Amino acid sequence: MEPLDPSLAARMHGIESSAVREILKLTQLPEMLSLAGGIPAPELIDVAGLAGAFQRVLTGPAGARSVQYSVSEGDPELRERLAELVRVRGAEALGEDVLVTTGSQQALDLIATVLLDPGDTVLVERPCYLAALQLFLMSGARVVSVPCEDDGLVPEALEAAIREHRPKLLYTVPTFQNPTGVTLSLERRQEVARLAKREGVWVVEDDPYGELRYHGAPLPLLKTCGPERVIYVSSLSKILAPGLRLGWLLCPPSLRPAVLVAKQAKDLHSSTVDQRAAAEYLTTGALPSHIERLREVYRPRLDTMLGALPQILPPGSRWTRPAGGMFVWVELPPGADALALLPNAVERGVAFVPGAPFFAEKERRNSLRLSFATLSPDQITEALRRLQAALNSRPEERRVL
Amino acid sequence: MEPLDPSLAARMHGIESSAVREILKLTQLPEMLSLAGGIPAPELIDVAGLAGAFQRVLTGPAGARSVQYSVSEGDPELRERLAELVRVRGAEALGEDVLVTTGSQQALDLIATVLLDPGDTVLVERPCYLAALQLFLMSGARVVSVPCEDDGLVPEALEAAIREHRPKLLYTVPTFQNPTGVTLSLERRQEVARLAKREGVWVVEDDPYGELRYHGAPLPLLKTCGPERVIYVSSLSKILAPGLRLGWLLCPPSLRPAVLVAKQAKDLHSSTVDQRAAAEYLTTGALPSHIERLREVYRPRLDTMLGALPQILPPGSRWTRPAGGMFVWVELPPGADALALLPNAVERGVAFVPGAPFFAEKERRNSLRLSFATLSPDQITEALRRLQAALNSRPEERRVL
Repeated sequence: MEPLDPSLAARMHGIESSAVREILKLTQLPEMLSLAGGIPAPELIDVAGLAGAFQRVLTGPAGARSVQYSVSEGDPELRERLAELVRVRGAEALGEDVLVTTGSQQALDLIATVLLDPGDTVLVERPCYLAALQLFLMSGARVVSVPCEDDGLVPEALEAAIREHRPKLLYTVPTFQNPTGVTLSLERRQEVARLAKREGVWVVEDDPYGELRYHGAPLPLLKTCGPERVIYVSSLSKILAPGLRLGWLLCPPSLRPAVLVAKQAKDLHSSTVDQRAAAEYLTTGALPSHIERLREVYRPRLDTMLGALPQILPPGSRWTRPAGGMFVWVELPPGADALALLPNAVERGVAFVPGAPFFAEKERRNSLRLSFATLSPDQITEALRRLQAALNSRPEERRVL
Repeated sequence: MEPLDPSLAARMHGIESSAVREILKLTQLPEMLSLAGGIPAPELIDVAGLAGAFQRVLTGPAGARSVQYSVSEGDPELRERLAELVRVRGAEALGEDVLVTTGSQQALDLIATVLLDPGDTVLVERPCYLAALQLFLMSGARVVSVPCEDDGLVPEALEAAIREHRPKLLYTVPTFQNPTGVTLSLERRQEVARLAKREGVWVVEDDPYGELRYHGAPLPLLKTCGPERVIYVSSLSKILAPGLRLGWLLCPPSLRPAVLVAKQAKDLHSSTVDQRAAAEYLTTGALPSHIERLREVYRPRLDTMLGALPQILPPGSRWTRPAGGMFVWVELPPGADALALLPNAVERGVAFVPGAPFFAEKERRNSLRLSFATLSPDQITEALRRLQAALNSRPEERRVL
């Protein structure tokens, strides 16, 4: 790797090449069964529906306008359709409240830009979505994690962290979290919203997986429990197609002018044609049945994984039992090292993501994230059999990472 | 306008609603002749060619992959094609050197993120492209402008500014600059590259207009004159379609790992389908003849504007005589106020952009930017006639802004 340039900004001094990323490049090999990626199953993407939407937009009367500059807020029709998606989830939203972003990752960057001064504290979940963690660290914030249990963030620990660190914001994925798959319970949602309002802390509710529920009844959004302090972020990546890079952000009115100026400075606006095609697709009404199909296919994948884990994990392991999303989180017995396990697993034709990078502070090297989204039930069974073989191999058979 | 939230980061405290933006919304009225926008003429966008490219990509064998997650560096085939565009301009470039960005605006954001610590100094041209100016100010940098003449940045003034301010980087649009249309001469290119190398200053060469030359012979890129310190940025917005939001960045190897990490943090990657469609379009070889067509249509528009300005501007006015691009810059006699002129002009059915916001420091309120790109020669003649009428109206007839 090229040495880092000494003139880099201080925020970039900690960056390094990721050994994990290098190993995961091997997941492209055809015989590999990957439990690593947090990506939609390719065979489930409605590419024919999207091709039709693009074609109608580009060959229609407003074809030239669909590849011209547009407004930073986003395409008006798409904003209406996205507000409808939020209303379906039970929260109040109008099209004019929606800012379209280049994926929900950009929504997080906009929030960091408008709210965080260097040295401000951000609270995150322990463990936390990796790309959010990296973004907040890059923004110069101090990142402090709050413990999570099977029903999400622990309110008492959150309250103590707020009192001790006076954070500017809390970042949370309350529904089918990445990487753990856990969901914040209704009681805890109400408590988190109450705490945020009382203590004057912004809460970023990142909700890319909310529609992907396979068991049980939906819970109200955190935004519904306390709209004053909640910035809601979501995405079309998991329910339509990630390659469109379309996410959105709903924030209280007092933040909107700043968020809009930041959006202009960062990329002027998101792709006009992708926004127009997404609006066209959503207007056809095809999304609800498409999401229903996703649920039907993902549900047995989750169930297969949860059914097999007790057989393949060593005694003393713990794991989450999500009701939706894409991920199951495993903690091997204390002393195990998922990072050291990975090359061994990859040699046996199965890949996963070691859990260590998801921790803001002291990493738990015995943890790993398993995605069940992209493999069929039979492939999941086989992938977990290979993982078991890697777990059972003697230490001297393992390559050093 | 909603009051700004007190919890905003310090970098956002200076933001305000733009009166100019409010007035320019009126340029959407059908009877308006707008010299304001820096946008490609809609009738010149090859929307049929783009529709075909999208259709082939989405209905082809890799259709699903074209709407899936992709790599942060950008689509490999598009990177090859963009490197070819740079080589056509005479500089060395390989596909692996190219980072695809969400418009060239994002390239500037990436550069600011990886290079600028708060308080660092950025040198810009006087006047400077507005969105770059806003971005550097938002990044917490100190922005200092360097005077420009008809052949661009003044090397002696640049050298003095480097000595006095020890800047981290210089931002320049050396070819058909926005907002002035002027081009840095060959001699000055060599001098700027030499100074940057000797003094250890990064130079951002922003080159969205380079292919849009209507008179004279092309000059070598600044990057060709001194590749060690030049970060080259360009865009498909002006030569293909802005709505795709596709730009690119070529930087020295020592900056690449940091730029890539910043790209991941900001939006993971740019739209997969737009990248695939652009690669498909460029692979058909349609771009060179499309650019030739742009030149044929824009050339008489520029010539019409330059031919009419001596007749319509008041004595004592000065203006640039660009050989390409989209803009002519006008300085009215001292004491004139283009901002106060705008509402009067808009009432008469012509719009322009007042020059004041393009200045990092002391603004010249007597300046204005005229775009000749989106109107026919006859419309330009009529637009300038209306501008003349506004200029000739007595002060008491003018609305206060």
